[in-house]
Amino acid sequence: MSAATRLRRLDERARIIVLERGADVSFANCGLPYHVGGVIEQREALVLQTPAALGARFGLDVRVRTEAIAIDTAARTVTARDLATGEEERIAYDALVLSPGASPKRPDLPGAERGLVLRDLADTDAIIEAARDARTAVIAGGGYIGLELAENLHAAGLAVTIVQSGPQLLGSLDIEMAHPLAQRARERGLDVRLSQRLAAIEPTEVVLADGERLPADLVVLAVGVEPESALAVAAGLAVDARGGIVVDAFQRTSDPAVWAVGDAVAKPVLDGEDALVPLAGLANRHGRLAADAIAGVAHPAAPALGTAVIGFLGLTAATVGRTERALRAEGRAIRVIHTHPMDHAGYYPGATMLSLKLILDAETDAILGAQAVGENGAEKRIDVIATAMAGGITGRGLADLELAYAPQYGSAKDPINLLGYVDDNLLDGELSVQWHELERRRAEGWRIVDVRTAAEHEAGSIEGAELMPLDELRTRAERLRGERVIVHCKVGQRGHTATRLLQQYGVIAANLDGGWLTWQAGRAATADAVPNKED
Amino acid sequence: MSAATRLRRLDERARIIVLERGADVSFANCGLPYHVGGVIEQREALVLQTPAALGARFGLDVRVRTEAIAIDTAARTVTARDLATGEEERIAYDALVLSPGASPKRPDLPGAERGLVLRDLADTDAIIEAARDARTAVIAGGGYIGLELAENLHAAGLAVTIVQSGPQLLGSLDIEMAHPLAQRARERGLDVRLSQRLAAIEPTEVVLADGERLPADLVVLAVGVEPESALAVAAGLAVDARGGIVVDAFQRTSDPAVWAVGDAVAKPVLDGEDALVPLAGLANRHGRLAADAIAGVAHPAAPALGTAVIGFLGLTAATVGRTERALRAEGRAIRVIHTHPMDHAGYYPGATMLSLKLILDAETDAILGAQAVGENGAEKRIDVIATAMAGGITGRGLADLELAYAPQYGSAKDPINLLGYVDDNLLDGELSVQWHELERRRAEGWRIVDVRTAAEHEAGSIEGAELMPLDELRTRAERLRGERVIVHCKVGQRGHTATRLLQQYGVIAANLDGGWLTWQAGRAATADAVPNKED
Repeated sequence: MSAATRLRRLDERARIIVLERGADVSFANCGLPYHVGGVIEQREALVLQTPAALGARFGLDVRVRTEAIAIDTAARTVTARDLATGEEERIAYDALVLSPGASPKRPDLPGAERGLVLRDLADTDAIIEAARDARTAVIAGGGYIGLELAENLHAAGLAVTIVQSGPQLLGSLDIEMAHPLAQRARERGLDVRLSQRLAAIEPTEVVLADGERLPADLVVLAVGVEPESALAVAAGLAVDARGGIVVDAFQRTSDPAVWAVGDAVAKPVLDGEDALVPLAGLANRHGRLAADAIAGVAHPAAPALGTAVIGFLGLTAATVGRTERALRAEGRAIRVIHTHPMDHAGYYPGATMLSLKLILDAETDAILGAQAVGENGAEKRIDVIATAMAGGITGRGLADLELAYAPQYGSAKDPINLLGYVDDNLLDGELSVQWHELERRRAEGWRIVDVRTAAEHEAGSIEGAELMPLDELRTRAERLRGERVIVHCKVGQRGHTATRLLQQYGVIAANLDGGWLTWQAGRAATADAVPNKED
Repeated sequence: MSAATRLRRLDERARIIVLERGADVSFANCGLPYHVGGVIEQREALVLQTPAALGARFGLDVRVRTEAIAIDTAARTVTARDLATGEEERIAYDALVLSPGASPKRPDLPGAERGLVLRDLADTDAIIEAARDARTAVIAGGGYIGLELAENLHAAGLAVTIVQSGPQLLGSLDIEMAHPLAQRARERGLDVRLSQRLAAIEPTEVVLADGERLPADLVVLAVGVEPESALAVAAGLAVDARGGIVVDAFQRTSDPAVWAVGDAVAKPVLDGEDALVPLAGLANRHGRLAADAIAGVAHPAAPALGTAVIGFLGLTAATVGRTERALRAEGRAIRVIHTHPMDHAGYYPGATMLSLKLILDAETDAILGAQAVGENGAEKRIDVIATAMAGGITGRGLADLELAYAPQYGSAKDPINLLGYVDDNLLDGELSVQWHELERRRAEGWRIVDVRTAAEHEAGSIEGAELMPLDELRTRAERLRGERVIVHCKVGQRGHTATRLLQQYGVIAANLDGGWLTWQAGRAATADAVPNKED
């Protein structure tokens, strides 16, 4: 619809026909889970525009319950079938825009047909209907839709289990950053099974891959989507290995009269290979750009960053760009930073802790990705970093950003500036160690020093860490001269001061990045990811 | 303190002495107004670091109640006076950092000495003490500190009047953007007097310039600050016309062994002349950069953008860069955009309306400034635009930003993207008219057409505007061929569609930027700015 309405604004004379297989155009996809939980009470709120209203305002011929079933690219015609009458019509086009979207994957397992999926309003109705008499729900899949549905079915009073085949929830985060989501889910009484799969769906229960049975009056399959590119393939248009329709920067497919946009399209990704990136913002943007190209005022699309956010049981998790996991798998030289700042000035009431992660190219200092999790302010920081990435601002450059500060909104040194400062320190030669590197370093003979207070140390510490509180370190530094020492505090800030201090006393000192909090999250997440553990 | 602690981390051997005239170092300046209103209950919360704790951790010689009274740049000595004993000491330095800050201006009027000011903890104590038995307060000054104090004294139960010499509150906004603040203040029962001054302060009342008397048990002077550069001037350091200490990009003054940072310093401003820009973020940043320069790892400061935010009676107003007012006064060719989007998807509960303004270089499309006012999400959008400015992203480039979207956080087309789209339309030749240009255009013979619904039109409309609802416009467009028409809707979006449509029918059509809402705010603000109006 964004292509159709934009094209009308550019060209009042064009004849514009919209074919839609379903009953609705322009509905609020991203709101569907929240209608299940009653957050969005009225179903009508999800219907953003009726076909009739859109048609009237923009002079469009909108045909719902009408499926495009074939494209003849040579003749430039589309065959449309009226799904009510079965009648077929060949429609000639000068320009064709494909926006078929992606459909939920349905895993190949016994009873898979019993699983519900969530794509459109009819699916939403079905889940609400099924939830009415259900007491237990199993959600297969811990991605965006899986988590949103888990939250909403829980809110609707069901006992919810999330079964996730991967070792963590939300694969767009790294494992230590995703850990708070599983932790929060369990605190709120949801059951989370990681590294686990459904083996079968039976009428009132599911069977897991390890044989365990879980009661399940309702099963939702939210294990990802696949592009609906069969029509494009049949028309001879180029698609990639995952079925994504291949387009150029102007959304043009391999046929010069056919454009494609949205979740069915393979998108160029900043600093990575083309990928599907099924996000609403990109779909909207590319719809407009396709119309621009058709009308002769073409602008190229920017490479996708994959900026995304989810609200989950009071937490916000947001992400942009690539993960440490993916980049390390590619063998990229990267620099990683974790911080745990308050979302606004600690002296102003209501401040909560954020966990931030920044991933940089080790050579160029280019920002490759970032992740943020917390009660408040996570999405703001990711939006800022996404903008910095688009503007080519480096990690060190984040220190220079001038962000709005009053105590209820941020800090004089915003968490974003702090990331830049940490990067600046690392670029100036300060050493740091990632949580997953600690044991290897220990095996290589590095000592581990806890520079927190005695009280903090006693409340929980890394095995074998020696306590040397920061405020006493100056008097003890001389004795560590020549040694290799990993220092750590709670979040990394005192550790930074300690590292600087020790370096100047001839100690080979490295700061545990993100401190005790990141180390602990990483360790807990790793343990959590082991299937069939006894607990 | 950011210079001192950074320098210690860079150089463990340096002897670092901190001289502070007051009793506190590193206190929460920006939190002071909120202690007056009881939002920050405990006074201790405002003392971020004690001199002793900072001294111990960073090996600093911190001397409070000790004033630097003279600098001998030739001998490289500072004379320090112990304010308790009167004893003086000459201290030699290799590098000297000045961070004297700015002091509240005290207008020259009878009784001015009765006015309280707010700069430090002692001032805060004095205001709280005075407010204890007071029923009425007059705040002279409607800038950041004036408004924050007004809110907090109101919260403390006082009847508050804001007396502002300028035609609007918050001069860092343009007048139509500032209008909601005055409106909100009046809705909440505060009295706001614009284009008005204090003539005298008497024991329990104030006299205004027009002779009116207002009861005032408590008077606060918050009419701006001036740099405390007397010491620098006496030492022969260069200062600018407003008294700001002149520094280079590395914070170095005209003397090579003296650096200066903070509110006393004139800062290079992006796209403007050097200015004071008394903001905490810049002070912090420049403190660190001064230490870097002293330690031999100099990084230049970025030009200041003046990003700022205020919370005021439930509204957030945020700003970055230059105002339309200032740029027009300089004769700059600019393009201005107003929008009124929802802060998050309208179908998700709790969405509220934002007012956004974007100011662009008419030729280069560079972003020169932006302003945002609303209940939620204003500071996020300004942070994103500040980052875009730092990254050299143009107005049109805002359309390409990939910002985090889920319905509780934003929209698939974020308000930021929407600004980019509007700019894109204007760059492609669409015409727009600013609220303050409407009457001139009307006088030139342009017709004004309201494309809203009949119901909206009847509820309030621009005098002389002809009603032609958008959905009927296509049938009436032919009759307007060749005419000059300003179309308007509520916020500018239907107006855009109408403008495009009419253009294609041969009408010379321009869209009223920001629609009825911006026009109305501008008109009301203009009327409000006229002093001594009868109402």
